[in-house]
Amino acid sequence: MMKKIESIQNRYVKNWTKLKTKKGRKIQQSYLLEGWHLVKEALLAQIKLQVILVTADFKEQAELTKLINQEQQLILISPVIAEKISDTGHPQGIFAIAALEKSLAEIPAELAGKWLLLDNVQDPGNIGTMVRTADAAGFSGVVFGRGTADLFQPKVVRSMQGSQFHIRLFTGNLSDWLTAFAQSGYPVWGTEVSAQALDYRQVKRTHNFALIMGNEGNGVDFQLLKQTTQNIYIPIYGQAESLNVAVAAGILMFQLSNY
Amino acid sequence: MMKKIESIQNRYVKNWTKLKTKKGRKIQQSYLLEGWHLVKEALLAQIKLQVILVTADFKEQAELTKLINQEQQLILISPVIAEKISDTGHPQGIFAIAALEKSLAEIPAELAGKWLLLDNVQDPGNIGTMVRTADAAGFSGVVFGRGTADLFQPKVVRSMQGSQFHIRLFTGNLSDWLTAFAQSGYPVWGTEVSAQALDYRQVKRTHNFALIMGNEGNGVDFQLLKQTTQNIYIPIYGQAESLNVAVAAGILMFQLSNY
Repeated sequence: MMKKIESIQNRYVKNWTKLKTKKGRKIQQSYLLEGWHLVKEALLAQIKLQVILVTADFKEQAELTKLINQEQQLILISPVIAEKISDTGHPQGIFAIAALEKSLAEIPAELAGKWLLLDNVQDPGNIGTMVRTADAAGFSGVVFGRGTADLFQPKVVRSMQGSQFHIRLFTGNLSDWLTAFAQSGYPVWGTEVSAQALDYRQVKRTHNFALIMGNEGNGVDFQLLKQTTQNIYIPIYGQAESLNVAVAAGILMFQLSNY
Repeated sequence: MMKKIESIQNRYVKNWTKLKTKKGRKIQQSYLLEGWHLVKEALLAQIKLQVILVTADFKEQAELTKLINQEQQLILISPVIAEKISDTGHPQGIFAIAALEKSLAEIPAELAGKWLLLDNVQDPGNIGTMVRTADAAGFSGVVFGRGTADLFQPKVVRSMQGSQFHIRLFTGNLSDWLTAFAQSGYPVWGTEVSAQALDYRQVKRTHNFALIMGNEGNGVDFQLLKQTTQNIYIPIYGQAESLNVAVAAGILMFQLSNY
């Protein structure tokens, strides 16, 4: 029989609620997956889940049962508990707790493929969306430079939509990465709103390259822009001052890639 | 001398705080612009502002003074009031109250140009970002079909980044709009994840067209998809199930446009 938790005072419930905070995730070395899409992505990627929490009205029970083995711990929780641990306010009736994954720190010896480098991007939704887009665009990895938000905070996790299970995530000094790309002979495209930059449609599509996206307000650090093969921009035709960074990244990732 | 409000109990403060809710905006027929970028965009677009609220530490006072005329009402508010009326939790020290603008309801006789049609898009951030991108891509207007979120809720306003002052926003029955496009002879591209759909890169770039983006979970309504010139899709190369709708809209708007 499935274990049941109904009291909001239960110590597990308290721990799960604490996963909303960076401190809570650090102490417990785990994070919360909310909603069927994310839990399913984790199961399909064979990520070990510490526990899966469902409410009585969770609708995909049959599909869930097919995807898990007998050892997987399942706990039935009350709707009130679901509301309490949810970050969205509209819980879908399923959650899972997964171990925090360490982002990779070492620059791989082989840099073939497509890489997205993020310099000081701030907004959690933008960060998660860019990881998801890089996954969709068949990128090899995403590298987080300085100023990276916590990758396992609920908003980033929600926007990644499970792409953390599909694509390699690195943290590191972007200047070192650019040096490695220069040695590999693969081009690095920086993004810059400047008369010196090149219209992105002038760049030849390739299989192997790196693209740097920068901070929402200030763009890519100017020292990094000096290390690139070429800096590029997306022309603005209307009166908007700029594009959202995740939208710009999506346009560039698909345009620069030779598939 | 500038009027000052310091008490959080002041009735104006109560009214401004109520602008966070749909009911409050409806009763007062106005909405809140938060942050210097938005207030500046409104002033540059010569939008009449009912009042501008600044805190003592607002840094762009000199630029603000240049942009306003003497009749513009300015009120100095305390940091506590700024926190209270802010939707972000990190107020930048400037706000303005603007009249709710009615979105246009009538289909224009001339449909030349580029149009973005939104069918039941739900997320306020996605909606605002798409309006901003349509502005940047030089579109003529955005049309909101069924299920449109409230355009003046704080999250939409924040993501639009002032593009509501640059581009025409319509509400209407998208099926009627598609009939009008058919009569005009301009193509309408629907978006659909389906084997019948065409790779978006096969579509010839044009000056005049409409693009329909759909609901985050369910896509564009299938009845609308029957009315289009051609339905298109963006191929996924990795393991992500889909792209974020605002990212997909950005890729398509820039790719389909002939500039």
